[in-house]
Amino acid sequence: MTDQQPNIAGVWVPALTPFNPDLAVNRQAFSTHCRWLLDQGADGLAVFGTTSEANSLTVPEREELLEALIEAGVPPGRLMPGVGCCALWDTVRLCRHALRQGCSAVLMLPPFYYKGVSDDGLFTYFSTVIEEVASDALQVFLYHIPPVSQVPVSPALIARLRDVYPRQIVGLKDSGGDWGYTRDVLTRFPDMVVFPGSERFLLDGLRHGGAGCITASGNVNPAGIRLVYEHWRRGLDDVDAVQTSITSLRDVLERVTMIPGLKSLCARHYGDESWVAVRPPLAPLPRAQQAALHEKLDAMGFSVADNERFVIELSRTMR
Amino acid sequence: MTDQQPNIAGVWVPALTPFNPDLAVNRQAFSTHCRWLLDQGADGLAVFGTTSEANSLTVPEREELLEALIEAGVPPGRLMPGVGCCALWDTVRLCRHALRQGCSAVLMLPPFYYKGVSDDGLFTYFSTVIEEVASDALQVFLYHIPPVSQVPVSPALIARLRDVYPRQIVGLKDSGGDWGYTRDVLTRFPDMVVFPGSERFLLDGLRHGGAGCITASGNVNPAGIRLVYEHWRRGLDDVDAVQTSITSLRDVLERVTMIPGLKSLCARHYGDESWVAVRPPLAPLPRAQQAALHEKLDAMGFSVADNERFVIELSRTMR
Repeated sequence: MTDQQPNIAGVWVPALTPFNPDLAVNRQAFSTHCRWLLDQGADGLAVFGTTSEANSLTVPEREELLEALIEAGVPPGRLMPGVGCCALWDTVRLCRHALRQGCSAVLMLPPFYYKGVSDDGLFTYFSTVIEEVASDALQVFLYHIPPVSQVPVSPALIARLRDVYPRQIVGLKDSGGDWGYTRDVLTRFPDMVVFPGSERFLLDGLRHGGAGCITASGNVNPAGIRLVYEHWRRGLDDVDAVQTSITSLRDVLERVTMIPGLKSLCARHYGDESWVAVRPPLAPLPRAQQAALHEKLDAMGFSVADNERFVIELSRTMR
Repeated sequence: MTDQQPNIAGVWVPALTPFNPDLAVNRQAFSTHCRWLLDQGADGLAVFGTTSEANSLTVPEREELLEALIEAGVPPGRLMPGVGCCALWDTVRLCRHALRQGCSAVLMLPPFYYKGVSDDGLFTYFSTVIEEVASDALQVFLYHIPPVSQVPVSPALIARLRDVYPRQIVGLKDSGGDWGYTRDVLTRFPDMVVFPGSERFLLDGLRHGGAGCITASGNVNPAGIRLVYEHWRRGLDDVDAVQTSITSLRDVLERVTMIPGLKSLCARHYGDESWVAVRPPLAPLPRAQQAALHEKLDAMGFSVADNERFVIELSRTMR
């Protein structure tokens, strides 16, 4: 990496966006949560991702929230705001805004309304954004999440983009959930910063050249997930046991709809019931499902506040 | 229908949005095209639909373009602007803007980023929009286009919404391409204004209580398609032959990617090559495909300028 590119690696969290009961963004709760994530050891925050309900925010809301977060003391170098919109000029606007705020790294969805579009069309989209933003500081992380966007970022497209924009196309968030794709990308683009989109693939990714992970469950288990990264970096023997532990927690979290499930855990963690609010079309987790999730995690001995201790203790039993 | 609700029926066209070579909206070409469509007999214009590349426009671009169109003399009562965005507050903003401009009828996509969302979540989305807009003048046409949005508008959801908002939920644009769904909706909601999203289903729809159609190919065959509606209204015998004629043209148009294909026909019709521009992620039709499409239509005797005559002559041969 060049001087212009800080070390973007480790565990990055797509921070949840808390809302007030009237569905306005709760900036204070957002800043509090983001600071807690960094205090827990998160390497950075991929604010305005899928988990953040970013596409349920307007463009001005995203801009104002990013400014508020930086004003609240979160260093812009540890933020990777999501900027990918259906309308190219919205994406250009959000990139320029992120750069002005001191954020070089941005997470860029492909435009996701039309389906079955060609790589030519997607190439033109991304290249037009890069040409319009016209900044060597810009570091684009392409966002591959076909289960949601339904518009994949193909390895062929990545190759074309990196060929023309080697300075800007620095990375990929791979939320496809398909290890074959992840391994293929890691093999073909060894210099690219690839983050699997789930801690399920954290250790496998690291062993194949991955940078870490950007994972929704990092909102409730940031220090626990980071233990895997730290153990791997230090070459510790029990890294596999730690990976198994965080995966077992992930298994439980995936039994419910992820975003409202994580928000219900934050509501309990912060003692603030308004945290359960989601913007439609998402719906809060039904009370009974919230209770069942909390009971299950209690029975396992997990709490958000003590997430690292839970992972340490569970991994000890696995040695 | 009540006094507040003008007669929304017949052939409505989701007007294409022309761009300059730099991809800025070409307002003048847009107004010219919209006026031509109305001169051809189109009953109204569903501006900012899928065919219009509306989701490739920013919210301010949509607002400014609607204002420019009305300033250019298009009556707001003959417009049904698309307003459905992923972010609820963008949809609220566009609804309010449309009402201020004198447009009561709006076409509303469900929020389309998240997939597999519940009817509860979608109900909350639509009901929150209606409650926030808080206007008895608002006439919502729900937009069912699962091949693109991947988020269907289920009959159960329509029933719930019409039960609570009988005044606002007046209609549906059904671009699912599934006649079973269309017939089901026409049967269950006989008072709703249902537009199939293709002229392929125009006559079948009318015979089952449909209102007409809102169809992309209306951009190049507006008078021809309207002949079916007019023949059906007047009870003319050869309505089936006219329907067969417009369907045979639709078959040819569907052989290429629809939006760039229609734009290439407009480029030729208006003698303005810049009409072929599309915003990424769409890509212009390759030159060879454009030429093949034009040759095929020439061989059939079709031209955009004489679209009505083509349909009349073709239907005569079918009697």
